[in-house]
Amino acid sequence: MPDYQATYKKLCEHYLKTTKLTGVSELIGWDERTMLPSKGGEYRAEQITILAGILHERNTDARIGDWLSELADSPWAAEPHSDQGTVIRQLKREYEKETKLPQRLVEELSKAHVLGQQAWVKARAANDFKSFAPVLEQIVSLAKEVTEAIGYEDSPYDALLDFYEPEAKTSEVTAVLAALKDDLVPLVAEIADSGKSPDREIMQRKYPIAAQEAFGKEAAAAIGFDFEAGRLDVTHHPFCCGMGPYDCRITTRYDENFFPSAFFGIMHETGHGLYEQGLRKDCYGLPPGKYVSLGIHESQSRLWENCVGRSKAFWDHFFPAAQNYFPEALADVTVDQFQFGVNDVRPSLIRVEADEVTYNLHIIIRFELEQALIDGSLQVKDLPGAWNEKYQSMLGISSPDDADGCLQDVHWGAGLIGYFPTYSLGNIYSAQLYDKAGEDLGNLDEMFARGEFLPLLDWLRTNIHESGQNYRATELVENVTGKKFDHKPLIRQLRAKLAPLYGIQE
Amino acid sequence: MPDYQATYKKLCEHYLKTTKLTGVSELIGWDERTMLPSKGGEYRAEQITILAGILHERNTDARIGDWLSELADSPWAAEPHSDQGTVIRQLKREYEKETKLPQRLVEELSKAHVLGQQAWVKARAANDFKSFAPVLEQIVSLAKEVTEAIGYEDSPYDALLDFYEPEAKTSEVTAVLAALKDDLVPLVAEIADSGKSPDREIMQRKYPIAAQEAFGKEAAAAIGFDFEAGRLDVTHHPFCCGMGPYDCRITTRYDENFFPSAFFGIMHETGHGLYEQGLRKDCYGLPPGKYVSLGIHESQSRLWENCVGRSKAFWDHFFPAAQNYFPEALADVTVDQFQFGVNDVRPSLIRVEADEVTYNLHIIIRFELEQALIDGSLQVKDLPGAWNEKYQSMLGISSPDDADGCLQDVHWGAGLIGYFPTYSLGNIYSAQLYDKAGEDLGNLDEMFARGEFLPLLDWLRTNIHESGQNYRATELVENVTGKKFDHKPLIRQLRAKLAPLYGIQE
Repeated sequence: MPDYQATYKKLCEHYLKTTKLTGVSELIGWDERTMLPSKGGEYRAEQITILAGILHERNTDARIGDWLSELADSPWAAEPHSDQGTVIRQLKREYEKETKLPQRLVEELSKAHVLGQQAWVKARAANDFKSFAPVLEQIVSLAKEVTEAIGYEDSPYDALLDFYEPEAKTSEVTAVLAALKDDLVPLVAEIADSGKSPDREIMQRKYPIAAQEAFGKEAAAAIGFDFEAGRLDVTHHPFCCGMGPYDCRITTRYDENFFPSAFFGIMHETGHGLYEQGLRKDCYGLPPGKYVSLGIHESQSRLWENCVGRSKAFWDHFFPAAQNYFPEALADVTVDQFQFGVNDVRPSLIRVEADEVTYNLHIIIRFELEQALIDGSLQVKDLPGAWNEKYQSMLGISSPDDADGCLQDVHWGAGLIGYFPTYSLGNIYSAQLYDKAGEDLGNLDEMFARGEFLPLLDWLRTNIHESGQNYRATELVENVTGKKFDHKPLIRQLRAKLAPLYGIQE
Repeated sequence: MPDYQATYKKLCEHYLKTTKLTGVSELIGWDERTMLPSKGGEYRAEQITILAGILHERNTDARIGDWLSELADSPWAAEPHSDQGTVIRQLKREYEKETKLPQRLVEELSKAHVLGQQAWVKARAANDFKSFAPVLEQIVSLAKEVTEAIGYEDSPYDALLDFYEPEAKTSEVTAVLAALKDDLVPLVAEIADSGKSPDREIMQRKYPIAAQEAFGKEAAAAIGFDFEAGRLDVTHHPFCCGMGPYDCRITTRYDENFFPSAFFGIMHETGHGLYEQGLRKDCYGLPPGKYVSLGIHESQSRLWENCVGRSKAFWDHFFPAAQNYFPEALADVTVDQFQFGVNDVRPSLIRVEADEVTYNLHIIIRFELEQALIDGSLQVKDLPGAWNEKYQSMLGISSPDDADGCLQDVHWGAGLIGYFPTYSLGNIYSAQLYDKAGEDLGNLDEMFARGEFLPLLDWLRTNIHESGQNYRATELVENVTGKKFDHKPLIRQLRAKLAPLYGIQE
């Protein structure tokens, strides 16, 4: 009998070392977006490319194939949800995918994505789509190469989606987003017809940046973010980056004259950070100690940002602290006015600052456009026009410029095509999980009003974070909630929160 | 005839890629000392170790040996100071050294030095030499292994010194530091006997940290530091780190109640940074685009910190700006009082805050102690006692605790044994270069008083920075100044600056 134990150990050691180098790559990418002096971009891109090459070599090492085929006959392989079974199943999946990508393509992708991101920063600042178009064309062309190298059954887009939401299919995502849209559109209309809106001037008062940072950190720590194992920094396009078992960094950007921007950005990235900090330490870097999909990752950020952070109960607890941090802006404001202010639902231009309701329409627009770029029915040069058309037809507005139009997101410049739909999947998952957490834990609102957030975090740790990749995303949610993947809880929760504010039906 | 051109190209490409990975290693080291969350240290040490292993593998790649032996017969090898000749000579030197160190030792060193540094931070904060002793014992033991692996003629310490000051010999350094000491001791005594001292309370007033940072940055930019290709951050033990042709990062630490600490730290690290930023871009990462020795590196930092930054002319220009930054502290102070304040010469405990005169005595103490640790005549456990004895006999003072005694410097914890003497070599070189710059450029003081620092920087660029490793350190200084290595210019400059302040003989 082969020595499965020894082979399994070799496999794990190989990947644990790879994870450490991946963490280095994450770190130099984080640095590139937060710290790097402006002239350092090109050289950094070359460094990231070299590391990507080293990582790809490690991930396609022929010994992995040998180890995995030996382990395929081990008793572990028959227990797909055990830790060992998960390691074998998931590493086989990754190995097969990686070996389909030639080294040359991996290095080209890596360099194009770093330079693309840098080009995007400049193009957005200068509102200059033309300078960005050739960069994006190359990125789209490389993405098409990827779909051909990886292969697909129905749609080339499947091959890209799978990088972010493993095993999801374009056709299924299209169906669920269509159902979601059918329920959202009337909700947006009801809100518009209600004739009610918050006092918007409140959120646009002066909120000094140092106080925003301190308050954001206080909130992040209160919901459980460990600042001894993480940081908060400033960047152009906020993100969260886990680069080690005790090193998870979140980022935000500050607008002195608009409170929600940074604060909900911090709540959102903290949600991601809590998932990273909640991963199992005993197998960090192996599939049971890794996040399962971006949809589930997003469910964590959305849950803390929206289900928790925009609730009345959250502000019943935090509003006095907010008044202390921003005495000038909030002296004459009530908690009800403030909570209405952070739930201002209306069509708007910028996805990351969109309200919870219209947000998913922003996603559907991107999902449709990137599919069209990949299947060739849309050319990069025609993107700004197509973008504005869709915004007009779906949200009734259009951007006066590309900076706040099709240049607003970093994703495409960074090569993240196939990523956007995971945001809406996350919204749907978050509502299902939040429902179930409430069933299990009792009245969450009462806990929040007392400043108790850790019971919810513990529930998420046990049920989601510590599950790693032992179950795939849809299985995981079904196991935890006992229910099929369903967008209805999201609609119900939105109506429940917004009904008292807008006087619409629950 | 062999295709020397093709071989030379392969050699250079190999090293250019290695340099990019070295830059990554520098970056994650910088991050470890400035940004890393406190719980992330152990994992980071493992990452640094893995990279050190990859770099050592690259640096000992057998192909390098083949390429170099082929190129040994090329016409370039006969022109040792040409770019190609320098590449061949210096890479041969490095390759021969690297191949003497086994991979296992390289990885152990790397990990021990990162963990040692982290242990040092804790031990210093807790004034706990005992917890640090076993860590230092291991570092000393590894350093001894290095001396045996590398080999030496006279003294094992030679093998360590060579890492920092290539081709320098312990016996020569001992001789020059002894001569320096013979001239410094009477100078210290004359100053003590002068009965004069600056008004020390001025430097101990409240200097708000944000203003210190802004003023420090203004001064660094004025003397030529390019903040689009560099940064300034906060750390425990200030350092400068070049990690790319357009990415050089300097660090400092702030004391709100002692002005010189951060400001001269910034001037010092900026001096290092200007050298890094002044390296040739067309061969960055190859020997003609690399610094030549730590002694020369230190000559640049000391020149800007001391020859420029403590001069009367510098403050004639900058004192009004200082008064703007620190209106409360400096309203009733004159520029003469201030400049005397930054030239306060007297025996003190902390090396990095010592005045220019006594500074070299701090170095001589460390130089003697680390030699004793390496030759085995001193045990780590006896270090605190030996430290205090030497301070008592050489400076007439001793530290009440180890935190400000033998735990004050990061070097030994970081494995930098053999490094300290380069500080004094730097002081000596800086004075020789500064003399010659004055001869070539005319009255430097008049330029400084007008805020003109770039002529001096240009002179250093042309004569030192752009020379890379084309000449070894002592040759370089001799070529530039036309004079042999000599400590007398340092003594003369010190006396010239201090005579008007203390009323001693020039």
